[in-house]
Amino acid sequence: MSHESSSSVPGSTRPVSVIGLGQMGSALARAFLTAGRTTTVWNRTTGKAAALVEQGALRADSVAEAVVASDVVVVCVLDYATVRELLDPVVASLTGRTLVNLTSGSPEQARESAEWAGEHGFAYLDGAIMTTPPGIGDPASMILCSGSPAVFAEHRETLAVLGDPLGLGEDAGLAALYDTGLLGLMWSVFAGWLHATALVGADGVPAKAFAPTAIRWLTAVGGFMDTYAPQIDTGHYPGDDATVDVQLAAVHHLLEASRARGIDTRLPELHRDLMAKTVASGHGRDSYGRVIEQFRPSRA
Amino acid sequence: MSHESSSSVPGSTRPVSVIGLGQMGSALARAFLTAGRTTTVWNRTTGKAAALVEQGALRADSVAEAVVASDVVVVCVLDYATVRELLDPVVASLTGRTLVNLTSGSPEQARESAEWAGEHGFAYLDGAIMTTPPGIGDPASMILCSGSPAVFAEHRETLAVLGDPLGLGEDAGLAALYDTGLLGLMWSVFAGWLHATALVGADGVPAKAFAPTAIRWLTAVGGFMDTYAPQIDTGHYPGDDATVDVQLAAVHHLLEASRARGIDTRLPELHRDLMAKTVASGHGRDSYGRVIEQFRPSRA
Repeated sequence: MSHESSSSVPGSTRPVSVIGLGQMGSALARAFLTAGRTTTVWNRTTGKAAALVEQGALRADSVAEAVVASDVVVVCVLDYATVRELLDPVVASLTGRTLVNLTSGSPEQARESAEWAGEHGFAYLDGAIMTTPPGIGDPASMILCSGSPAVFAEHRETLAVLGDPLGLGEDAGLAALYDTGLLGLMWSVFAGWLHATALVGADGVPAKAFAPTAIRWLTAVGGFMDTYAPQIDTGHYPGDDATVDVQLAAVHHLLEASRARGIDTRLPELHRDLMAKTVASGHGRDSYGRVIEQFRPSRA
Repeated sequence: MSHESSSSVPGSTRPVSVIGLGQMGSALARAFLTAGRTTTVWNRTTGKAAALVEQGALRADSVAEAVVASDVVVVCVLDYATVRELLDPVVASLTGRTLVNLTSGSPEQARESAEWAGEHGFAYLDGAIMTTPPGIGDPASMILCSGSPAVFAEHRETLAVLGDPLGLGEDAGLAALYDTGLLGLMWSVFAGWLHATALVGADGVPAKAFAPTAIRWLTAVGGFMDTYAPQIDTGHYPGDDATVDVQLAAVHHLLEASRARGIDTRLPELHRDLMAKTVASGHGRDSYGRVIEQFRPSRA
């Protein structure tokens, strides 16, 4: 535990520095100020700090000044290249501190950053903020964190100012990987919902009338995900609720209803192909969880 | 109001007939019995009624007998052709009663059935059960109902025995249309989740570890749907949270992360195409709600 120097300061009062004051960085700094933290801010262009200084933030005149002002340094900038560009020149000042990198990037970039931190003797957490700036500070907002569980535990209270921090474990790349996967899930939900909204819209149903039913339906679908997840881990897919065979029959209704209304069918066609290949591989009587094999690398 | 004959019987005690005792029909009959309703059952093969009779159901020896036993007749069979095959010979006995058709079918079939009911002087509700048989009786389960709002109001209490009945209004086709659209949404959620699960799985994350985050994320995504629905109805898509431009940039991370792990990319490619076309049509600064135009019939 090389980071116990800061443990004399209780987590709930620990000062924080925020580097990068775009929409998200500003929201982070505001949340720390609202929580009563001594908050030092820095941005490449100085104008963005003004509103925060009015709310009580301390303005750092340089990145170096921002780094030495607090044991916890939160960085949220355009990309990982910018993180390195800003912090490499002052990396010696990071030694013994904790860098929480909330910049968006790839799992590989996050892992490289963790190595870089290790080389320079500072603690590193990589995070992904699963909300837009107005959601910062809401305990419903997930803040995915990866890196050393001990470092995460030490800074959980600080991260809880921003939302609900979830520690994903040692591998620093996981927050970025989860983030990428969850965005993919979001686009899939949007696509399915927009397709359905166009479908019911063709028969005169307003989007606003359909949305509550669709949103509520997500909860039921989540229940199936809960059932299928352990099946995926064990590779056994009992089709007790609805089999792929049954769903393949039903997807034809969606294709027909879409075609009859002139609605684009690429999305249901993709579903049909995923199901048809699952059936063709002899798994038609399995649960829908089995369809994951259509996404995985073929083991041929 | 031609159906007031039954209004002397309070909704909460009204006898019910159930025609069709497959897995779903049996679950419906069981729910009525549990709710203390006098329940008459009929199935083409008589064996299936035995367990229900043991639980107190009255066995009808013919469809005609089942129809005349109750003012409310629930039918749940293989398809609409079977509904007509069973009920056309006894259609005169339906006059003055209410037929609740919970058989799966298309909006067009539902509308034809409503016309058929009108011609023969009986009330008709078309329903879609948004759960599997074990979910029957759970107030969380949506029972979508379309057809006359007055008839729906009269039988809401009876339908509430099965789940949460939601009246979609006069057009009898809407329950089937919603059902079809919601199944499409379900397959899209599954596809996005299975893709993401394969992605994080490639880096060693068990499906069971990822699922709770994915399920929780659905709630956040539902929040965006709530925001975009009125935008779709008004045709104004302010991009205050995240623009299509921003998401198009992010989808490339998903494509790269998928390729690097050998995960199938057809789903993220479809998302990229939907976004790219939205941007190409000059709407990159709009919210994701604008992407609905990629599904709608082209107005060229």
